[in-house]
Amino acid sequence: MKILDVTLTPVAFADPPLLNAMGVHEPYALRSVMQLHCEDGVVGLGESYGDAAFLDQVRTALPGIAGHDVFDLPGLRRTVAAALGDVVVTDAHGLTGGFSSAKTLAAVYSLVEVAALDAQGRYLGRPVVDLLGGRARERVDFSAYLFYKYGAHLDAPADDWGETTTPEQLVAQAHRMIGDYGFGSIKLKGGVFAPEREIAGIRALAEAFPGLPLRIDPNGAWTVETAIAVAAELDGVLEYLEDPTPGIPGMAAVAEQAGMPLATNMCLVRFADIEPAFRARAVGVVLSDHHYWGGLRDTQALSTAAAAFDVGLSMHSNSHLGISLAAMAHVATATPHLTYACDTHWPWRDTDVVTGDILTFRDGAITVPDTPGLGVDLDPDALARAHEDYLRCGQTSRDDAAYMRRFVAAFEPNTARW
Amino acid sequence: MKILDVTLTPVAFADPPLLNAMGVHEPYALRSVMQLHCEDGVVGLGESYGDAAFLDQVRTALPGIAGHDVFDLPGLRRTVAAALGDVVVTDAHGLTGGFSSAKTLAAVYSLVEVAALDAQGRYLGRPVVDLLGGRARERVDFSAYLFYKYGAHLDAPADDWGETTTPEQLVAQAHRMIGDYGFGSIKLKGGVFAPEREIAGIRALAEAFPGLPLRIDPNGAWTVETAIAVAAELDGVLEYLEDPTPGIPGMAAVAEQAGMPLATNMCLVRFADIEPAFRARAVGVVLSDHHYWGGLRDTQALSTAAAAFDVGLSMHSNSHLGISLAAMAHVATATPHLTYACDTHWPWRDTDVVTGDILTFRDGAITVPDTPGLGVDLDPDALARAHEDYLRCGQTSRDDAAYMRRFVAAFEPNTARW
Repeated sequence: MKILDVTLTPVAFADPPLLNAMGVHEPYALRSVMQLHCEDGVVGLGESYGDAAFLDQVRTALPGIAGHDVFDLPGLRRTVAAALGDVVVTDAHGLTGGFSSAKTLAAVYSLVEVAALDAQGRYLGRPVVDLLGGRARERVDFSAYLFYKYGAHLDAPADDWGETTTPEQLVAQAHRMIGDYGFGSIKLKGGVFAPEREIAGIRALAEAFPGLPLRIDPNGAWTVETAIAVAAELDGVLEYLEDPTPGIPGMAAVAEQAGMPLATNMCLVRFADIEPAFRARAVGVVLSDHHYWGGLRDTQALSTAAAAFDVGLSMHSNSHLGISLAAMAHVATATPHLTYACDTHWPWRDTDVVTGDILTFRDGAITVPDTPGLGVDLDPDALARAHEDYLRCGQTSRDDAAYMRRFVAAFEPNTARW
Repeated sequence: MKILDVTLTPVAFADPPLLNAMGVHEPYALRSVMQLHCEDGVVGLGESYGDAAFLDQVRTALPGIAGHDVFDLPGLRRTVAAALGDVVVTDAHGLTGGFSSAKTLAAVYSLVEVAALDAQGRYLGRPVVDLLGGRARERVDFSAYLFYKYGAHLDAPADDWGETTTPEQLVAQAHRMIGDYGFGSIKLKGGVFAPEREIAGIRALAEAFPGLPLRIDPNGAWTVETAIAVAAELDGVLEYLEDPTPGIPGMAAVAEQAGMPLATNMCLVRFADIEPAFRARAVGVVLSDHHYWGGLRDTQALSTAAAAFDVGLSMHSNSHLGISLAAMAHVATATPHLTYACDTHWPWRDTDVVTGDILTFRDGAITVPDTPGLGVDLDPDALARAHEDYLRCGQTSRDDAAYMRRFVAAFEPNTARW
């Protein structure tokens, strides 16, 4: 089944002022939607980043894609690789580790691969999970992804989540999110305040939700010494500690002392990082993310490499819409070695460009239906609106730090700050 | 698409008296053919070992298989695992490393997985390679697999290959095999004679076939000291040296000194072996084999783990028929990180139970056609004949050593003998 045409639509959707080590989320999150128009009227859908640097690279690769058989994934990857050459895309938010041409290729190809797998599934009448080896689990558990946040964007009215800067507000945020979705575990995005304050937040959550697994992710905001001290403080409280400090050597030094496994989506972000990270025993849990790990099949491959070294697997999330959620759910369903609930920013958005039963959470989990492909249908009007929002919002890249400086003029990212 | 019924047919086919470190091949090689009878009249084919211990375990797993959806590979694996429990199947030939319940499960499940993938492909009208991620290569290169051999089985007339014990006879065997198939590389099964004699064989091949990549596989017949000495002797002559000595520590000691990569299908035979073998830097090339690595998808997973550590991948072979050859060709075609020509015993057999264009070598390679499934069709009469041969031949397990003792009464396997 040949690909006849490809369209790429940048979209924007409202995003609350969520805080992290690099700054604060801007008023809109940017994404891109790919449509692979194939023979027989089949259209495959993919979703990924929406910043200008990424869009430029996807557009570089687009001309070679039409004409390929949609089953020729290796050929599509070679075509994308040839179009990109050795280009390295960097992003300003810096929350997903280093940059490389391999990571850039993996990110651009991933968008194409997801759309191609959706098209394959639609053509064959099978859900994507069946093309990935079948259902290794019945449901995919997600975690409640808590953020410290401001109550309102600059020059805007308060959003309905309100401010979250105290332990009490954190617990309230968790109650609302768990009430709405039924999540059975909690992740706190940290690296915002001094460690003692975030430890108090975790302790408040542990008290309010006894028995629920807890994680904190300061995005490398701590030194090795601080990370070791926090790990000792929260021993027996956290199921894992995510990216406490930057880099493989630092993570290895912390891992040697910490009572809980260390997770990462920063120091191990491409296949070439696996050997040094695993040899150094720096990582106990790899956070997969099909958007920069080269797609759904390579996410499964990552899982196998982790399993071989008895390293756990969880799943990272950036702000995303429904196509990505569906893709995350399919690959998670098909992957036997996925040892923790997945992260998702889903509760923080209130719009989408697709519809589908797969987008419904029950008891904190998604169950992949037997619908062909990813199981989501494009809403053309919603896509048009989201594209208009993209054009209107004026954002073209994500820069949490620059936006933060409009709140706190002297702000610098908190990398290994404490 | 539900599986309605499963049949398992043990078969035997004539095999020449090929020599190895454990002894000599018996007059018949044993295999098993699985047929998954599915809804809509689809029948999926699989092939694997045919010794009694393996057949017993497959039969233990059979009752749970019918009723599964043929796309539910994880469910099929769970069913097989539950049926087998912690059983460990051992074989008498000892040429594929240690035994474990994980390896037993992987072997039994692999047979089911291949048949299920064949059924999926037939049902969907797509070749199996498309279900494994698409064509990463156009053709799959195989190597000429040379053996020292006796001229005849006990109490039997000479076979038409004749005896091969001298360098000249080895070169003649290579000329015939390369003439018939067009292979572009050569593997010699060693571990039969003292190393000096096998080195002379390799040197004769190097002279007769300048530029052709060469390998030798003594199946662990040498001590570490001997292996280091042979590696030094053949530096610049071999593309890789396969299992010169038993065990990960021994391989690591040789690898540290050897100029060429060491390959193995003996010290790294299941996912749990990857970490110790890679940490010790014992292996430069992993020889995959879907028959004991848990099927085609797990073979691809093995490839990814190897790629992450910059370890090469090649493919091991036991005596086999056409269903296995087709499965090997599909997985090799779909696997980007396959860095050497694959082994195959194919030239040593002269009968089969299936037909198909995929079984034709051109220039030493196979090209996977677009035919649905594996691309082979069962020949029911040939299957019946091969089953009769199985019943008539009286062999129920492979025991190269016992058969060898009928030629050389005092024979003991050559494990680390020299």
